Amino acid sequence: MNNLGIVKRNILRADRAAVEKLAQYGVATIHEAMGRVGLMKPYMRPIYSGAYMCGTAVTVLLHPGDNWMMHVAAEQLQEDDVIVAACSADSEDGFFGELLATSFRARGGRGLVIDGGVRDVKDLTAMQFPVFSRAVHAKGTVKATLGSVNIAVVCAGALVHPGDVVVADDDGVVVVPAALAQQVADAAEARETNEAEKRAKLAAGVLGLDMYKMREALEKAGLRYID
Amino acid sequence: MNNLGIVKRNILRADRAAVEKLAQYGVATIHEAMGRVGLMKPYMRPIYSGAYMCGTAVTVLLHPGDNWMMHVAAEQLQEDDVIVAACSADSEDGFFGELLATSFRARGGRGLVIDGGVRDVKDLTAMQFPVFSRAVHAKGTVKATLGSVNIAVVCAGALVHPGDVVVADDDGVVVVPAALAQQVADAAEARETNEAEKRAKLAAGVLGLDMYKMREALEKAGLRYID
Amino acid sequence: MNNLGIVKRNILRADRAAVEKLAQYGVATIHEAMGRVGLMKPYMRPIYSGAYMCGTAVTVLLHPGDNWMMHVAAEQLQEDDVIVAACSADSEDGFFGELLATSFRARGGRGLVIDGGVRDVKDLTAMQFPVFSRAVHAKGTVKATLGSVNIAVVCAGALVHPGDVVVADDDGVVVVPAALAQQVADAAEARETNEAEKRAKLAAGVLGLDMYKMREALEKAGLRYID
Amino acid sequence: MNNLGIVKRNILRADRAAVEKLAQYGVATIHEAMGRVGLMKPYMRPIYSGAYMCGTAVTVLLHPGDNWMMHVAAEQLQEDDVIVAACSADSEDGFFGELLATSFRARGGRGLVIDGGVRDVKDLTAMQFPVFSRAVHAKGTVKATLGSVNIAVVCAGALVHPGDVVVADDDGVVVVPAALAQQVADAAEARETNEAEKRAKLAAGVLGLDMYKMREALEKAGLRYID
Amino acid sequence: MNNLGIVKRNILRADRAAVEKLAQYGVATIHEAMGRVGLMKPYMRPIYSGAYMCGTAVTVLLHPGDNWMMHVAAEQLQEDDVIVAACSADSEDGFFGELLATSFRARGGRGLVIDGGVRDVKDLTAMQFPVFSRAVHAKGTVKATLGSVNIAVVCAGALVHPGDVVVADDDGVVVVPAALAQQVADAAEARETNEAEKRAKLAAGVLGLDMYKMREALEKAGLRYID
Amino acid sequence: MNNLGIVKRNILRADRAAVEKLAQYGVATIHEAMGRVGLMKPYMRPIYSGAYMCGTAVTVLLHPGDNWMMHVAAEQLQEDDVIVAACSADSEDGFFGELLATSFRARGGRGLVIDGGVRDVKDLTAMQFPVFSRAVHAKGTVKATLGSVNIAVVCAGALVHPGDVVVADDDGVVVVPAALAQQVADAAEARETNEAEKRAKLAAGVLGLDMYKMREALEKAGLRYID
Repeated sequence: MNNLGIVKRNILRADRAAVEKLAQYGVATIHEAMGRVGLMKPYMRPIYSGAYMCGTAVTVLLHPGDNWMMHVAAEQLQEDDVIVAACSADSEDGFFGELLATSFRARGGRGLVIDGGVRDVKDLTAMQFPVFSRAVHAKGTVKATLGSVNIAVVCAGALVHPGDVVVADDDGVVVVPAALAQQVADAAEARETNEAEKRAKLAAGVLGLDMYKMREALEKAGLRYID
Repeated sequence: MNNLGIVKRNILRADRAAVEKLAQYGVATIHEAMGRVGLMKPYMRPIYSGAYMCGTAVTVLLHPGDNWMMHVAAEQLQEDDVIVAACSADSEDGFFGELLATSFRARGGRGLVIDGGVRDVKDLTAMQFPVFSRAVHAKGTVKATLGSVNIAVVCAGALVHPGDVVVADDDGVVVVPAALAQQVADAAEARETNEAEKRAKLAAGVLGLDMYKMREALEKAGLRYID
Repeated sequence: MNNLGIVKRNILRADRAAVEKLAQYGVATIHEAMGRVGLMKPYMRPIYSGAYMCGTAVTVLLHPGDNWMMHVAAEQLQEDDVIVAACSADSEDGFFGELLATSFRARGGRGLVIDGGVRDVKDLTAMQFPVFSRAVHAKGTVKATLGSVNIAVVCAGALVHPGDVVVADDDGVVVVPAALAQQVADAAEARETNEAEKRAKLAAGVLGLDMYKMREALEKAGLRYID
Repeated sequence: MNNLGIVKRNILRADRAAVEKLAQYGVATIHEAMGRVGLMKPYMRPIYSGAYMCGTAVTVLLHPGDNWMMHVAAEQLQEDDVIVAACSADSEDGFFGELLATSFRARGGRGLVIDGGVRDVKDLTAMQFPVFSRAVHAKGTVKATLGSVNIAVVCAGALVHPGDVVVADDDGVVVVPAALAQQVADAAEARETNEAEKRAKLAAGVLGLDMYKMREALEKAGLRYID
Repeated sequence: MNNLGIVKRNILRADRAAVEKLAQYGVATIHEAMGRVGLMKPYMRPIYSGAYMCGTAVTVLLHPGDNWMMHVAAEQLQEDDVIVAACSADSEDGFFGELLATSFRARGGRGLVIDGGVRDVKDLTAMQFPVFSRAVHAKGTVKATLGSVNIAVVCAGALVHPGDVVVADDDGVVVVPAALAQQVADAAEARETNEAEKRAKLAAGVLGLDMYKMREALEKAGLRYID
Repeated sequence: MNNLGIVKRNILRADRAAVEKLAQYGVATIHEAMGRVGLMKPYMRPIYSGAYMCGTAVTVLLHPGDNWMMHVAAEQLQEDDVIVAACSADSEDGFFGELLATSFRARGGRGLVIDGGVRDVKDLTAMQFPVFSRAVHAKGTVKATLGSVNIAVVCAGALVHPGDVVVADDDGVVVVPAALAQQVADAAEARETNEAEKRAKLAAGVLGLDMYKMREALEKAGLRYID
C-alpha cells in the first residue's frame, strides 16, 4: 500500500539549460521569483561558510539512525544530481560522512541536503563537498531498515519530487519543481536585472520610501510622525 | 491608545564621546560594568565571525513577515546609528538583505540588530555590514502592516529606547541606556585596566584561588579536599 | 550524603601513550571504535572552526550562574588535562572567558568542554584555546555556591569520570573511559586502516552496494526497483 | 507561476464509508496500517485532553500573522470536513478562535489542524471543537495577504492534499491519502483484531519474547545474558 | 549605576475599578483592545487548566537558581497584587512552591507569573493558586544573590512596570500599563459587545466573507476561484 | 569492549522498606533531601496529570526508532520495579504503548520513565499506567538493533544504575542511588516534618524574611529600600 522499499530508476530531471540558468541566482532571488514558496526550514545550514549547490534531486527517505538507503541512492545518481535525504522522524544522527561523499562524487553527485545529521565535517570541507543539514553529529548509523529512493519526500518542510531543482547557499535551500525550472530562471533573471538599478539609487541615498513610492500608502494606513 | 503607527523623529542620542569610548570595550566587559544587566538573549548571533558594531539605536517594531517599517526607519538614521528591530511575535522570516543594507549604510547606519531573520548573508559579509540576528532565512516579507519607529521596544529580551547605545560582538549584544553611557564607559575602562595585571599573574601560574583570596570562603562554605 | 563540596585530588588518569594514540583519530572514528557510545549531545559545538582537543578529564560540577568551582578546578590540572564542566541545571551563562583560559593553560590545561555558555570568544580564538560549549553568551557569573571537582558528572548527556579521555573535534565530543583507552585506540587504528582501501574503491566509482555486498540483503528485505 | 491566491472549489473527497470506518481506529493503528508513514510532527498537540477528529481535508495555506484565508476556507467546507492549515513560515500567532470555530461548525467543519497558534482555548473546549495545533497564543492576526485554499500543503511535516482523510487523537495527527482510505481502513481493522489476542496473552504474563518468537533472533544478533 | 539590590516600596497601582473591569475579559480580547501588544511569549503556560488571574504587578528580578528576592517581594504585596518574576538569564529551576504560595496568599497575592520554573504543582493545584510559568521543575534554588523588587522588568518578552495590570488565562499572559487600564477595559467591553452579534450570525451560517465584506478586497488582491 | 548487547539478570535492588518510605514524599522533597541532585531534565513530563510512581529501576538502552530491547526488559521485571529507558541519540518516536504496558504490568512493572516518545496515551491513562516521557508520538518503531538491559544509563541527564529508586510525580523525576535510599528517605522525613510548622506560620502572615531571619544578610549584601 505504501511506497516504502521502492527505488524508482527513471525520473524526469529538470531541463539542463534551466538548471544552469538557475545556478546563476541566489536562493533568496529564486524563492522570490517563485512567489515566495519552496523554501526549506531555516534550521538547514551549510556545514561550511560559502557552501553552494544547484542540481537535480535524487530523493531518499531514511529512518532514524539508519543510512542503508544512502548506498541505494548512490547507484541512481547521474552527473549534476544532488541528493535530498528526508527522515521518517526527527533525527540528528550522523547519516553521512566522507566515504559516502567520495562515492556520491564519483557517481556524479554535486552535494547533499539532509534533514538529519552529518559527520566528518573537516574532511567534507577539505573536499569542498557541499552539505546542508539539520545538525552535525559524530553518531553513527546502522543499515537495517528499508526506506525508498526517488519517491516524493517532505524534507525540512518542503515537498521535493525526484528531478526537481534544488539550490542551496548561505541563505538556505529552495526547491524548484522540474516543470517550472525555465520559467523560474527567467523570472529570477528579470528580478536581478531590476535590482541593479535599485541598488545604485539606494547607495546614492535615495530612500526606499521614495523609490518604491510608499509614502502615500503609509499615510493612508495611518502612520503618524511625531517630534 | 497604543503606540503602533508612530514615527518619532527627534530622539535623544547618547553622547557621542561616550559612544566612542564604549566602542573600545567588548560586550562582556560593558555588561559587567553595568552590573550584569542589559544583555540580549544568547540566540542573537553575528552573521559572520568578527562582526562588530557600536552606535546609537534607531528602533523599529515589525510584525511577522512584514518589513515595511524598515524603509520608514531608514529615513530616521543619522551618522553612526544602528538599527534595532523587534518583532511583535517570534518570526524567522528574512526581513533584511543587501538592498536595505545599502540604503542603511548610505544614510549613516552602522549595523543591524534584529530579533528575526535576515538574508543575502554572502553579500552582507562582502559589504562587511554587521548584522546580529535570530536566524538566517531566505524567506521574503510583505509590506502591509504598520509598526512603529523610535518607540521603546523589547528586542531579544532586552529593553531598548531610541538613542541608547548598542554594542555587539562575538559574545552577544548589550544595550547601554543613553543616560548611563559615560558612566558605563568609565566603569568599563576601570575594569579593563584592572584585568591586565590579573592576566599577567594568571599566565605566570598564580591561581585564582590565591589571587582572589578565595580559599577561606570556600573552606567556610564547607569545601572538602579528599584523596 | 551527597558529593557536593568535594575536591578529589588524586585521580587515575588514562595511560599517556593511549591518549597520544587516540589523538591521531577523529571523534567519529573513536565513537565507532567504542561501539557507537560515549558521545555528548550534538548541541555541543566548537567556538571556532577547526578547534580540537584530546586529553584527560578534570571534571567540575557547576551551578547555574556560578563559576566559583572553575577556580578550584584550575589547581587540580596537570599537563595535558582538559576541563569538563557540567551544570546542575541547564544554563547558558558565560561561565568561562580568557582570564580563566590563561590560568588553565598556565597550569597545563589543553581545552574546555562545558555544558553551558562561554564568552571572550574572540580572545579565546586568538589564543587558539579550544572550547566546546552549549552556547556563547557574555552573561557573567557569581562565585557563591559550592559544586565539586573530580567527581563523576553527566555532561551534555555523557557520563564522564575524572581521568577519562575526552576527544573533541568539528564532529562533536566523545568520552573514552580511562580503562578502555588503549583498547579503543587500537580499534580506531584498525578501523582507519580499513577505510583507506574503501575510499579508493569508492573514489573509483565502485558502489557501496557492491563493496559491502548489500544487494542480497536489500532484496531479501523487500526492496523493489521500478521504472 | 505559483499557486498562491487560488481557491479550488471542486475537490475529490475520500469515500464517506471509508472515512467512517477509519473513524473507528486510533492514529497509532492507522499509521501502522499505512506502513508507518503519514504522521505530522509530535509538536502538534490537542488543545484539550481527549480531543478527536476524523474527516476530509479542506486545506489552507496561511502566511505568518495573517488569517485572511481562513474565512475563504469556511465557504469551501462541506459536512464532515476538517480544516488543515499550513503556514508559509513558522508562526505561533493565534490564527483561530471561537468565532471562526462557530463559523466552521455552522458550515459543517468538524475540527482544525493548524501548524500555528490558536486562542480562546477555554471557549473552544466548552464547545468541544477539536483543535490540534503547534501552540496556544492570544496573539491576533491581520487580514492582508493572499494564501490559497485546497492546494496541496505541507503541514507539520506531512503532505496533505484536499480531500485526504485526517485523523487526530491524543497520540497525534495522521493523513491518509484519499485514494488509500478504504485500503488503510481495512488494514487497520485487521491489525486491531490481531491485537486483542495478543493483549490477553500479555496480560496473562506471556512475554513478548516468546509470543513474538524473538529469542532466536536476539541470540543471533549477539545478545548475552550475564549474572 | 544599575538598579540591582533595590526594593521600591511605593508603587502606583492601576485604578482598582479598572482592574475589576479588566477581570471580566479574556487575554485575547484585552490584547486586541490594546492594539495587539503587551503579550508575553507563548511558552508561558498555566500549571493547571483553567488557571486565571487579574491583578496589579509587584515585580521581581531573580538570578538563575536563586529565589532569595521572592521573600523580599512577599513583604511588598498588597491585596489583589500578582507577582511577576523575571530572571536575568534563562533558567527553568523551580523558584517557587507551595510554601511561598502560602505566604503570598496570606499577604494578599493572587497569583504568580514567572519566566522560570515552579514546583509543588500538585499542591498549588489543590490550593487553586494560579501560576503561569516557563517550566515545571523540582530543582531547588539557593538564596545568595541580590536582585530587585518593583523595578521595571522584561518578563517573557513583555515589559512590566510595578503597578501594571496583569491578566492571565488559558490563552496566555497580557500586561496592561497602569495608566491605560480604564481605557483598555472600555475598549475590551466595546469589542466584546460587538462580538455577540457576530457570533450569532456566524452560528446561523453567514460567512465571514460576507459579514466582514471581504469579497471585494480579496478579488482586488487577485484571488482566483478555480474548479 | 562496550556493553551493548548485554542483559544483566542479577541486580541489587534498593531496600524494599526504604523504597516504601520514599514513596511517602514528593520529588521536590526527595531531591532537596539528597542535596539538590539526581533530577532528570524538566522536559520529562507525565502523560496524564497526577501520574505517580516509585520503584526500583530496571534500565534499558534503546536506539532511535527501535524498541526491541523493551521486550527483553520485560522478562527482567520483578514486583515493584519501574522501567527506565534511555536512548543512544535523541528520538521522539513512540517506543511504548498499551500492549507493552499490559506486559510490564503483568510482570510486576509499576511504570515507565523514557527519554523518548510513547503512544496510546488514552489507553495508558485509562489503565492508570504512569509514564513520564520526553514526547507523545504515534510513530512506530522497528525491532532490529541490540541495546542493553540493566546497565548504567544516562536518562534525560541523570545517571541511573539498575536497582536505584526512581520517584516521579507532577514536578519531575528523581533518581536515588540504591545505597542511599534509606538515608535519603530519613532526610526527606525530617525535611517534611520541618515544613508543617513553617507552613502554619506563613499562612498566618509571618514573612519568610523574619521566619528565616534573612533581613540582616540582605542588608549586608547591600539591599536598599527606596520609596
